[in-house]
Amino acid sequence: MGSPVHRVSMGDTWSRQVHPDIESERHMQSFCVEELTNILDGGAQNTALRRRVESIIHSDPELSLKDNYFMTQNERYEAAIKKKFHIQMLAQRLGWSEDSRELYYANRSLSGDLGLALQFVFQKALRSLGSEEQIAKWEPLCNKLQILATYAQTELGHGTYLQGLETEATYDAATQEFVVHSPTLTAIKWWPGDLGRSATHALVQAQLICSGAQQGMHAFIVPIRSLEDHSPLPGITVGDIGPKMDFDHSDNGFLQLDHVRIPRENMLSRFAQVLPDGTYIKLGTAKSNYLSMVVVRVDMLSNEVIPLLQKACVIAIRYSVIRHQSRLRPSDPEAKVLDYQTQQQKLFPPLAKAYAFHFVAKSLLEFFHRSYSSILDRDFRLLPELHALSAGMKALVSDFCVQGAELCRRACGGHGYSKLSGLPSLVTRVTASCTYEGENTVLYLQTARFLVKSYLQAQESTSQKSLPQSVAYLTAPDLAKCPAQNVADFLHPELYTTAWAHVAARLIKDSVHHLQTLMQSGADRHEAWNQTTVIHLQAAKLRPSQRHPPAVSNVRST
Amino acid sequence: MGSPVHRVSMGDTWSRQVHPDIESERHMQSFCVEELTNILDGGAQNTALRRRVESIIHSDPELSLKDNYFMTQNERYEAAIKKKFHIQMLAQRLGWSEDSRELYYANRSLSGDLGLALQFVFQKALRSLGSEEQIAKWEPLCNKLQILATYAQTELGHGTYLQGLETEATYDAATQEFVVHSPTLTAIKWWPGDLGRSATHALVQAQLICSGAQQGMHAFIVPIRSLEDHSPLPGITVGDIGPKMDFDHSDNGFLQLDHVRIPRENMLSRFAQVLPDGTYIKLGTAKSNYLSMVVVRVDMLSNEVIPLLQKACVIAIRYSVIRHQSRLRPSDPEAKVLDYQTQQQKLFPPLAKAYAFHFVAKSLLEFFHRSYSSILDRDFRLLPELHALSAGMKALVSDFCVQGAELCRRACGGHGYSKLSGLPSLVTRVTASCTYEGENTVLYLQTARFLVKSYLQAQESTSQKSLPQSVAYLTAPDLAKCPAQNVADFLHPELYTTAWAHVAARLIKDSVHHLQTLMQSGADRHEAWNQTTVIHLQAAKLRPSQRHPPAVSNVRST
Repeated sequence: MGSPVHRVSMGDTWSRQVHPDIESERHMQSFCVEELTNILDGGAQNTALRRRVESIIHSDPELSLKDNYFMTQNERYEAAIKKKFHIQMLAQRLGWSEDSRELYYANRSLSGDLGLALQFVFQKALRSLGSEEQIAKWEPLCNKLQILATYAQTELGHGTYLQGLETEATYDAATQEFVVHSPTLTAIKWWPGDLGRSATHALVQAQLICSGAQQGMHAFIVPIRSLEDHSPLPGITVGDIGPKMDFDHSDNGFLQLDHVRIPRENMLSRFAQVLPDGTYIKLGTAKSNYLSMVVVRVDMLSNEVIPLLQKACVIAIRYSVIRHQSRLRPSDPEAKVLDYQTQQQKLFPPLAKAYAFHFVAKSLLEFFHRSYSSILDRDFRLLPELHALSAGMKALVSDFCVQGAELCRRACGGHGYSKLSGLPSLVTRVTASCTYEGENTVLYLQTARFLVKSYLQAQESTSQKSLPQSVAYLTAPDLAKCPAQNVADFLHPELYTTAWAHVAARLIKDSVHHLQTLMQSGADRHEAWNQTTVIHLQAAKLRPSQRHPPAVSNVRST
Repeated sequence: MGSPVHRVSMGDTWSRQVHPDIESERHMQSFCVEELTNILDGGAQNTALRRRVESIIHSDPELSLKDNYFMTQNERYEAAIKKKFHIQMLAQRLGWSEDSRELYYANRSLSGDLGLALQFVFQKALRSLGSEEQIAKWEPLCNKLQILATYAQTELGHGTYLQGLETEATYDAATQEFVVHSPTLTAIKWWPGDLGRSATHALVQAQLICSGAQQGMHAFIVPIRSLEDHSPLPGITVGDIGPKMDFDHSDNGFLQLDHVRIPRENMLSRFAQVLPDGTYIKLGTAKSNYLSMVVVRVDMLSNEVIPLLQKACVIAIRYSVIRHQSRLRPSDPEAKVLDYQTQQQKLFPPLAKAYAFHFVAKSLLEFFHRSYSSILDRDFRLLPELHALSAGMKALVSDFCVQGAELCRRACGGHGYSKLSGLPSLVTRVTASCTYEGENTVLYLQTARFLVKSYLQAQESTSQKSLPQSVAYLTAPDLAKCPAQNVADFLHPELYTTAWAHVAARLIKDSVHHLQTLMQSGADRHEAWNQTTVIHLQAAKLRPSQRHPPAVSNVRST
């Protein structure tokens, strides 16, 4: 066997020239591309800054991605770690601060193909759940990479159902320490990124036991590897969980804790404290420990999920302009595949969604920013709505982004199956987002519970004052029929938002009706819920997704 | 960096024990499992034979698949080639003949993870397109692996549209040779499996030019690598096309031909011949060269596509029995995830499809066997129907198998993202089947053209004698309303097949109506076709899929 393998070369001179078919399409647009770019970037200044950063990143040979698809998993991991440190030094040299827009653009232009990404999740959790002292202590260590931190929640036997997590943190008043322990095989932490080989510290979610009482899930910072020689600390068994569908560059890992002792100060204590004598003090609600997950869910849409669909659209649409195949008429030359109606039907809906999701995510982020600081100050009134919105939007957006990216991939025929098109890895990566940070079906059903509750509230109250704004449509009067009077009316977006609100309200009403009918015929509410979840799922998927739909309120006020 | 990587171990003793949750489910079934198994295998004798072969394969350490997910692409390729030769020697030793059921079961139990799979496609093409002399010459060489053959059709710039293939085979009467040549970059053969490093011969589809006239696509056997030292022959540039979404074990390759000369006898000549003086003799129709693709499409359903969905269902349903998560009632222990309504909604439809497709593929194969021999004898009357049925079924079955396998994967949550679950590779592999052997949209539209033609024929003719049997429903009288009289009627499958035929007939009628309306308003038929392809696509997807639906004909005769 074995004639020499001809390696496909990338980055040849010819590939840097713009294809004439692309060039001609670029002169046909009916709007100002630069203006739209500025809107997407949030201003012309941002566009300029982004381009400056991108040109720095793309011209730096240390940051080249071109060998990615030819590397083994191990090589991918090492390259990602090297890039992370290179970026860090670059940032220092160029004066890009933590949380700066420059660093954000730098990460984005590297497609997130950097090591130690969980550092960011750890920090989000720290800022959400930690006291000011804890933030002041741990954050600088992260920023300077003096510790490498990860977030360890999911266990081998437990993902979705956090109350079922088995890892225990038992307070020992004698030494003022927590004893963190994995009591079973299924309690082993499983999946955290950066855990397999890199992390020195883990934020471990565990059941707090103090003064003999179970207090539910709390967050603990547990050192897991030596800062001297990186070996696992006593009581720690840690390693890589092996090959995955994607994320080769990440060392997703497992962690088994055998009575590991950590100081009392390592329990994050914004919403709960354990006093030296073992007294438990609750400062938040039972849900406040879930806050860090809400933060990550809101963030991942713009920073991870939607860009993967955007890239898939760009690749597939450019390809469809360059690729000529078959003829529209026997006498014609072969046509651009984009000129076929079926190709347009494949590609334009995902493209439209890529734009829609950009603005939906922006609007969700704005609501998040408005509600987050009051939640940190222990005003939890907006938390249920924030939770329901972020859960539902995360599920909906990730579902459609996977569908869209795979449609784009298949629309490129055989070439979409080659990793060199970039499309396979966009698909295998975005599909993970339907599972991580909350499995989508579970998230839809959490949104559904909020909808049922809101619907019942809308029925009971006459004032409707307290109904969350995002479900205000539940109090709108039923539309007897479609308000369109003529064909031109179908050109008004308000018509669609009104119709959408109408469908959503009816579906929610219907799902509540099913639930109540079952309960009236003798099922208890748990049984009735499980027997109606498929209907609730539909209702949650179809609810209007925008929190502040000005169009809808205009229509409604007329 | 770099604490030692803990490798997840497979094949431990505990993993060979049946989990008690699986064990208990196995005692709950309401039917005889063995009987169903025998039906699926086509008889109890086959079941016994299959089990015998599987036990030989699974106990042979040379054929172990357990390291697959930890190998590099190169290692996968080498392992697959080794396994192929090992199986070949095993077959010789045990007296398993070519085309034997034993060898079929052996391949199946290795999940097709064997090298040199294209040998089989080459042979199918040879038997379809070659003369008896050619078959007698080349087949034994393949069977004994004295040559390694592949099938080279797709080009870098041409997949779907075979008339657009650029590779040329120009007859030179002076030497009685064909000069096979890639005139452009886009003419390079691209994708054939086993081509990158293994194949010594390729069946090259090329435009025949003889006596100065283009005669369309024909098949030529071209030696590409030396049988002495495996180096590329003069005029041949050949290599591997690089990483793909799956099929790491296969060396998909490219092939550029620079005026390569082959003897006149190397053109497959069942349906066309070139005489020594360059006279072209046509023995088939313009479509007969497509026959080999029809053969492979029929075959791939049972041998590649459907088993991938079947396996995904088995893994996901077993997992859903073992996995306990959350509680149906607060007082209950954590429930099997299969007991959740939403999990059942995910898994049962793909399971039902896995069974349905098994029988659909069997029925298609039977029709194929009835029509194939007459086609080989140049009676082409059944070819259009065979082509339309196999194209539509390939597209429909592969689409649903991808959807179903991905649903199964996601239904396993995080564990479904680990390659060790087996699910990621089932998904990335089955998704290829939507593209290879005819891109699905293109295939649906070929079926749609057949449906339009059949519909118009049904309208024109009063005798309806000549309408292909699979579209006989087009002549059934319109149902004024659903024939069900009471709830119990909905338990009769005939009701659904009748309703299905009704929907299909209406959609086809509708698509033809759109086509005709556009043409009446001035569009030429090519423009009208492109403007209605989305509707035709829907009609083709919804047509009844069984060729011989006895239920429907019963209903019709009442």
